[in-house]
Amino acid sequence: MTEKTGTLYGVGVGPGDPELLTLKAVRLIEAADVVAFFAKKDRPGHAFRITGDRISKSAISMRLEYPYTTEIPVDNPKYRAAMANFYDTSAAMIATHLREGRNVAVLCEGDPFLYGSFIYLFDRLEEFTCEVIPGVTAMAGCWAEAAAPMTRGTDVLNIVPGTLDEDQLTSRLTGADAAVIMKVGRNLPKIQRALARAGLADRAVYVERGTQKESKIERLSEKTDEPAPYFSLVLVPGENPSA
Amino acid sequence: MTEKTGTLYGVGVGPGDPELLTLKAVRLIEAADVVAFFAKKDRPGHAFRITGDRISKSAISMRLEYPYTTEIPVDNPKYRAAMANFYDTSAAMIATHLREGRNVAVLCEGDPFLYGSFIYLFDRLEEFTCEVIPGVTAMAGCWAEAAAPMTRGTDVLNIVPGTLDEDQLTSRLTGADAAVIMKVGRNLPKIQRALARAGLADRAVYVERGTQKESKIERLSEKTDEPAPYFSLVLVPGENPSA
Repeated sequence: MTEKTGTLYGVGVGPGDPELLTLKAVRLIEAADVVAFFAKKDRPGHAFRITGDRISKSAISMRLEYPYTTEIPVDNPKYRAAMANFYDTSAAMIATHLREGRNVAVLCEGDPFLYGSFIYLFDRLEEFTCEVIPGVTAMAGCWAEAAAPMTRGTDVLNIVPGTLDEDQLTSRLTGADAAVIMKVGRNLPKIQRALARAGLADRAVYVERGTQKESKIERLSEKTDEPAPYFSLVLVPGENPSA
Repeated sequence: MTEKTGTLYGVGVGPGDPELLTLKAVRLIEAADVVAFFAKKDRPGHAFRITGDRISKSAISMRLEYPYTTEIPVDNPKYRAAMANFYDTSAAMIATHLREGRNVAVLCEGDPFLYGSFIYLFDRLEEFTCEVIPGVTAMAGCWAEAAAPMTRGTDVLNIVPGTLDEDQLTSRLTGADAAVIMKVGRNLPKIQRALARAGLADRAVYVERGTQKESKIERLSEKTDEPAPYFSLVLVPGENPSA
């Protein structure tokens, strides 16, 4: 008995509001034989929360639980080894389904190819047919909700992970017309210092859980010392004059 | 007789494939009293082509025709004056509908707040209630179709308009981990020179009409001298190693 190999789908599910799923994402999630999603220990998984009720009752659900998220620093060798092993194991499980002819949809918050964990599966599953369905990014959800037009005309937009060190952050932000700082979380104080050094602190807007019910938007300069969740963002909208 | 003022919706309609509309965009386009869209002279308008059959038969259709697109340079004072006048007039027509209680959906290719013409209406219609519906960006559509993961880990992504001059382009690209160059069109030879000076020419991928039937993807280094349409992009994917 030979079976046709399945297709791997990396499905962007958008920033949080289930209505920001695309028609294509809905169609593929509803039809998938296997639906995989990443989740933090003891959490339902953000992508799963967005799409949960779209998954077919007959689909095989595959929860991929990160060994670590923010418990230890990303440059700790123990972190790296555990994550590499986690992606190897996850990719092997998905490969088994694909070889047995089942289509596998991997749910991806935002867009799969912009800092997505999906990339590490894609890198390991090159031998299979893969289609990526782009999604509304977290940052686009946040700047829409903040009513903050980001770039006009010749503005350059720099997208910078908050996990860089303070000097790197400062140099990547200096001279930016507009910027988005991702992966804020515990990096917030460092980000605030880098923005001040780059002369951008006054324009920065903090957005937490954009497009979700519990969203919060405030000027970064007015933010008190409360901790920020990992999926918060800082926006620095461009200042190019209107046409 | 007093009427409730209408709401202005800036609706992202994605990069081209009508299946990349979000559920929210579909709902608002179908329900809108007035649907406005930008178009180039003698063309149907890209956003209108994506969503045309979703618009209610009873909706008022408002075609906003650019006085110029690429006929004269953007720094020509005649261009600036004509465009400012065009946005003033368009905003005034929309304001009339809003004051008379009609909801107005402005269709926006990609995402409304990333280089969108919608921003120039938004800037002029601040007095009205406005909601922006984020969309899948053109670049996300292109990198998905090119099977090109853009950023891993600490990669910084620079989004750069091809309309900058060669020295500015070079300086904004130098040292970038990953980059997207928008608004390619007739700027292509200049962009190729800037990428070579920044040491990124070998990694650059050219994408034309991403997610559409007529899409074209090739290594930029292999692209011949044919002209590029305005809505083509150049991607420089990040090279960070996999986890």
